[in-house]
Amino acid sequence: MAKAGKLDKSSEPLSVDMLHKMNAYFSAANYLSVGQIYLFNNPLLREPLKPDDIKPRLLGHWGTTPGLNFVYVHMNRVIKKYDLDMIFVTGPGHGGPALVANTYLEGTYSEFYPNVSEDEEGMKKLFTQFSFPGGIPSHTAAETPGSINEGGELGYSLSHAFGAAFDNPDLIVTCVVGDGEAETGPLATGWHSNKFINPVFDGAVLPILHLNDAKIAGPTVLGRIPPNELDELMRGYGYEPFYVEGSDPLIMHQKMAATMDTVITKIRKIQDDARKNGFKERPQWPMIVLRSPKGWTGPHVVDGQQIEGTFRAHQVPVSEVKTNPAHLKILNEWLLSYKPHELFDETGRLIPELAELAPKGLRRMGANPHANGGILLRELRMPDFRKYAVDVPSPGVVVAESTRVQGNMIRDVFVLNEEAKNFRVFSPDETASNRWGAVFEVTERSSMDEIKPTDDKVSHTGRVMEMLSEHQCEGWLEGYLLTGRHGFFPCYEAFIHVVDSMYNQHAKWLEVTRHIPWRRPIASLNYLLTSHVWRQDHNGLSHQNPGFIDLVMNKKADISRVYLPPDANCLLSVTDHCMRSRHRINVIVAGKQPALQYLNMDDAIKHCSAGIGIWEWASNDKGSEPDVVMACCGDVPTLETLAAVKILRERLPEVKIRVINVVNLMTLQQPSEHPNGLSDKEFDILFTKDKPIIFAYHGYPWLIHRLTYRRTNHQNMHVRGYKEEGTTTTPFDMVVLNDLDRYHLAGDVIDRLPSLGSRAAYTKQYLRDRLLEHKEYVYKYGEDMPNIRDWNWADGKS
Amino acid sequence: MAKAGKLDKSSEPLSVDMLHKMNAYFSAANYLSVGQIYLFNNPLLREPLKPDDIKPRLLGHWGTTPGLNFVYVHMNRVIKKYDLDMIFVTGPGHGGPALVANTYLEGTYSEFYPNVSEDEEGMKKLFTQFSFPGGIPSHTAAETPGSINEGGELGYSLSHAFGAAFDNPDLIVTCVVGDGEAETGPLATGWHSNKFINPVFDGAVLPILHLNDAKIAGPTVLGRIPPNELDELMRGYGYEPFYVEGSDPLIMHQKMAATMDTVITKIRKIQDDARKNGFKERPQWPMIVLRSPKGWTGPHVVDGQQIEGTFRAHQVPVSEVKTNPAHLKILNEWLLSYKPHELFDETGRLIPELAELAPKGLRRMGANPHANGGILLRELRMPDFRKYAVDVPSPGVVVAESTRVQGNMIRDVFVLNEEAKNFRVFSPDETASNRWGAVFEVTERSSMDEIKPTDDKVSHTGRVMEMLSEHQCEGWLEGYLLTGRHGFFPCYEAFIHVVDSMYNQHAKWLEVTRHIPWRRPIASLNYLLTSHVWRQDHNGLSHQNPGFIDLVMNKKADISRVYLPPDANCLLSVTDHCMRSRHRINVIVAGKQPALQYLNMDDAIKHCSAGIGIWEWASNDKGSEPDVVMACCGDVPTLETLAAVKILRERLPEVKIRVINVVNLMTLQQPSEHPNGLSDKEFDILFTKDKPIIFAYHGYPWLIHRLTYRRTNHQNMHVRGYKEEGTTTTPFDMVVLNDLDRYHLAGDVIDRLPSLGSRAAYTKQYLRDRLLEHKEYVYKYGEDMPNIRDWNWADGKS
Repeated sequence: MAKAGKLDKSSEPLSVDMLHKMNAYFSAANYLSVGQIYLFNNPLLREPLKPDDIKPRLLGHWGTTPGLNFVYVHMNRVIKKYDLDMIFVTGPGHGGPALVANTYLEGTYSEFYPNVSEDEEGMKKLFTQFSFPGGIPSHTAAETPGSINEGGELGYSLSHAFGAAFDNPDLIVTCVVGDGEAETGPLATGWHSNKFINPVFDGAVLPILHLNDAKIAGPTVLGRIPPNELDELMRGYGYEPFYVEGSDPLIMHQKMAATMDTVITKIRKIQDDARKNGFKERPQWPMIVLRSPKGWTGPHVVDGQQIEGTFRAHQVPVSEVKTNPAHLKILNEWLLSYKPHELFDETGRLIPELAELAPKGLRRMGANPHANGGILLRELRMPDFRKYAVDVPSPGVVVAESTRVQGNMIRDVFVLNEEAKNFRVFSPDETASNRWGAVFEVTERSSMDEIKPTDDKVSHTGRVMEMLSEHQCEGWLEGYLLTGRHGFFPCYEAFIHVVDSMYNQHAKWLEVTRHIPWRRPIASLNYLLTSHVWRQDHNGLSHQNPGFIDLVMNKKADISRVYLPPDANCLLSVTDHCMRSRHRINVIVAGKQPALQYLNMDDAIKHCSAGIGIWEWASNDKGSEPDVVMACCGDVPTLETLAAVKILRERLPEVKIRVINVVNLMTLQQPSEHPNGLSDKEFDILFTKDKPIIFAYHGYPWLIHRLTYRRTNHQNMHVRGYKEEGTTTTPFDMVVLNDLDRYHLAGDVIDRLPSLGSRAAYTKQYLRDRLLEHKEYVYKYGEDMPNIRDWNWADGKS
Repeated sequence: MAKAGKLDKSSEPLSVDMLHKMNAYFSAANYLSVGQIYLFNNPLLREPLKPDDIKPRLLGHWGTTPGLNFVYVHMNRVIKKYDLDMIFVTGPGHGGPALVANTYLEGTYSEFYPNVSEDEEGMKKLFTQFSFPGGIPSHTAAETPGSINEGGELGYSLSHAFGAAFDNPDLIVTCVVGDGEAETGPLATGWHSNKFINPVFDGAVLPILHLNDAKIAGPTVLGRIPPNELDELMRGYGYEPFYVEGSDPLIMHQKMAATMDTVITKIRKIQDDARKNGFKERPQWPMIVLRSPKGWTGPHVVDGQQIEGTFRAHQVPVSEVKTNPAHLKILNEWLLSYKPHELFDETGRLIPELAELAPKGLRRMGANPHANGGILLRELRMPDFRKYAVDVPSPGVVVAESTRVQGNMIRDVFVLNEEAKNFRVFSPDETASNRWGAVFEVTERSSMDEIKPTDDKVSHTGRVMEMLSEHQCEGWLEGYLLTGRHGFFPCYEAFIHVVDSMYNQHAKWLEVTRHIPWRRPIASLNYLLTSHVWRQDHNGLSHQNPGFIDLVMNKKADISRVYLPPDANCLLSVTDHCMRSRHRINVIVAGKQPALQYLNMDDAIKHCSAGIGIWEWASNDKGSEPDVVMACCGDVPTLETLAAVKILRERLPEVKIRVINVVNLMTLQQPSEHPNGLSDKEFDILFTKDKPIIFAYHGYPWLIHRLTYRRTNHQNMHVRGYKEEGTTTTPFDMVVLNDLDRYHLAGDVIDRLPSLGSRAAYTKQYLRDRLLEHKEYVYKYGEDMPNIRDWNWADGKS
């Protein structure tokens, strides 16, 4: 079937003794897995099972578990044989029992969880806690030693594995991909990660495609395509596949051991060649196709229906064990088939002859520090962000492209950490487009395929990871962070929604690990969202979406932060803060287009540290209570607010306006909801208790209401933002369409100050005229009027 | 290079005359494409270009455009030659100019947009409108005749194409996949759609992988892998690849024409065989790899840098044309290289010899009704949903699984529309798990690969589309709906976030097409979100996420609806309503677990029609003003609210409680925000103007505040919901962790009625005791207490 890599029948790498020991170890892992799913008492089966020994709720996924146990024991063997630094990423995440069983057998589980000791009492706890209140989930999770991949939502195992391998030349990441997970989009493109692995400087990923033919209820795509297609698919993805197929454990052990020897040798040869002779061309990395029965070694038939080898083995293969004596008997026999009394001694501990099969110390996959990256985390060497400051002699006259300025700082982060090799940028082909071009002064885009003379800044050693897949960028970055490194993900704002679900999962991982003492904090996941809604006028409605912030705000306060720096110096300050932070997800929203600059560096630092503040230079309420508060959050809303303030101050100078700028969105929340939240007293001092507030916000306006509804003066708050009005038009017309422009904002103020009288009416007419003039110009010339494009705060023209 | 499918050099399918005509047509399309990007005046180049002839802002993507023009002219040829029913799905969406140019050349554009007439004036408008305020986007969009795929966010072209082909046996969907888009996850798994195409009953998809080597700024993965890997990859995906590679247009036309003849003949042969002899096995469908230079036929070198064939041709290949005379000259020569004066007559119309190359009438791809599915939409034959009613003699005593009841109705939708073949269910392997098992009484899961005796309900003609990829399910369904059919997408609630971004794009498509008169309304996209947050206790935190509703609420009111029916009869009523609706996205959230039923069918219909209402039978404020309003939305919050009411009515009978249930979340909004919104008066009548409101909500509680902050009594509204507190535990403990349980809710009421005095304190102690008792039981036995599990409204025990 396989075109190559087929095993020579004469090769039997395991001695008879080793073969039986490995099979016994495999049995021990299977026994512990079944125990987790079923047993409440009687963990060593000292007497035949009684209904009371069974858990009240039977939960868990047996189907994929024995295959993972099989892989684990063979990984252990090669780790010992070749002294490998290896971690295990498990895609078929619901095989949680396998990873728990194996880390228990190797001793790491009891080291992390001393209550779950290596004896009968500990084994009982191991069984009880599984899928039990106060216990552990049924899938591979943050609680599982050695795991960097949550097994709830499927699709990200390969991306995580490759992220872990970047810049870890001595690490081999074994990644088991289930044939269910293999159907997801992220996984399907995840295979292409091999185009970004440099055999000199990076580690290796060993994918094991585990085919067991069925998912929850139906067949799998890769489980059922003809073998020649599967072979071509894997070769087409750039791998050299090796096959281990069958169901007799003893035969399968020999096959797997021989194959493991082959693939490890190949990986070492590829690396040795490249490290001695330099990188020549992308190698065909080996991968393994493991085809074994679903629910392998479990009950073959229950109630006349085949279980082993079918979808029926997916979860709990024998149900109603408490109430159906025949089923209880099947379970009893099934457990005894592993001969537990030959595996565990009288105290319940794995017998020494088997225990010695596991690697020692940090070589154990459950104890490998790469899978608990916080342990390995080194501080980034950070440049002094002040030195990239834009010179802002006075507010609103100098123009700069904020993300371009930020790019200079990121460039120097690469330089300062060149030796440590612990920082990368991940982006869907947008690094230059998002104005981070400066990074290409010191590094390049990564590619291991052909590089042509017409290419710009592409190399085999580039540290900018560009693949047109937000999933891949996110997955790689997560894998890189989880193994103790640092990174950044600049992205078009609208398309970050592609990874909403990955964000959710990573946020939950961070939240859970905060409460797991042995998990050390990792570097924050930093997003730059640019090419944002207000500057997608040319691309139209499909490119306009500020909703990622709303998603982020639904997660736990201790994990997520959202910053909307109004100018380049604020962006620098915020970037520095985010890159130094730990165990968070920081979302920075900033424009890339030329825009007015407001704060010099000292003021920017002060402003960003507070997260919110009055801009005295723009306000005219000096020391007294204002008539109106004009708040703004986001670079474009800030510009429009200032332009509105200028109109009002020129035309209605008697109106006392206070301008507030918000950088850190979390300051708006109650302190009980978020640690960055202003107290009600502070909020009232800023926003007054009863004056109208016109709030110009970058995203969906209702988010501001959601954050502030409990504040004293909320009923006077009037929020403008993006309300899904967009099309192909000009930048200024985008804000006009959403009533966020200077003329609408000024009008909003006038509408809320009825005492202004006739001058107000005159100004309202002025505002209406300006809007008409704008529309006429834009529809005629296709661009904004010069007085909009060239507007600034100081020049007296508005 | 290619293992097979290579062209015989001697085959020259095009006569010299035809060859030159097709090339001229290709030139005309290229000319019109360049014109759209650059020209403001002088569309026919009657005199040399002057700066004033150039648009003020140069926008658009030239790189992919000529390749699309090339494909289009060859599609036209085979449509005419074989009388094909064919539509064109364009993945490289920023090639908008190509589709606009070609539909203009074939006459459909001017039929849909009479102002853009087939003469000089119309051509000027065609050019001006492109990427211009009030005009059209630069990518393929809803405005583009013949399009069913928005080209902003990449990745969904193949899924859309296959969705269009299902149940359209005479249709061939040509789908161009760009090598940028090919890097996305959804596209990478989209290739596997061929495992679900039945050659007897479905149409065909002809994928054309368009390799032009680079994306915005870097190389593409598939553009740079060795040719043998690419060939294996396509064969591994199950296709037979044919290659058309080169840069000389005349040679390329011959190659493409020969290849098109080959692949169309192959498609017909596959279909004829299967339709005559029955389905035997999945065929190797043909596909084409088209390798042509990026920016083909455009300027080769500008300012000493190579443009054609490099990433520099991605967008506008010659910039600053208005101000740089040398660049203006390049543009002038470039446009003249297409010999516009030989292509268009004096009036600006395509000359007849070329116009006749296009198909006629509805065979034109811009006019094909499949690409404007509303035209073909037939009403579903719907069963009377009342006949599936659960018999509910009195509220809160009968137990049923809501989605299982709904499944009976869906089964009969399949039966009633068996002949029309215009309904399918799309789900990631969860149809049975989500309790829609009844559909398998009348249809099966679809698969064209091996079916084994151990499989359950899998067949080559199944209408349940299960692939473990939410992207694929969503993309197929969108393609199916956009071509005028009906469908349903049941999904785990947490994992629907995987398609957040696809939802955004589809919602925007629906919104835009509402304002395009020639686009007819299509069937609504219906989601069932089940296996929801409150019943993911066993799967833990990673499976708990009710946030999709929040995403949906950010979109336009005329598109999105969210329903949370509290029981099975309400679910039936809502399902019927959603399936009859048009041009919406309906989100239905409902549990699959056994749960109490409250309303008989008549009451359910009344309740769901109103969308919100007082449940008199649960209230004791008969005709008077209540002391407290207890509102609930979602099945589990409803259960907990009723249980709390019962406790309060037994222990504090003097408290007058009004129970309100919300089915349609949109009723809570202001009528100015949403057409379903209650007026303030109606809202005040229900919720009172000043009494405390305890609101138990299914999702994140702040959403309710966001929807109601303007209501009179908002300051008295206290909302409980999911606040990201979850773990592996029991169903009841899930609500306890989030303070949404009966004891917390009852306590919330007491806390807001200070006048209750000592009986209240006694009851509070009772509530605290119950919570302690619960925790103790759950941590000991791993399941909820019997009096929680078996609780009902009527039995007097609480």
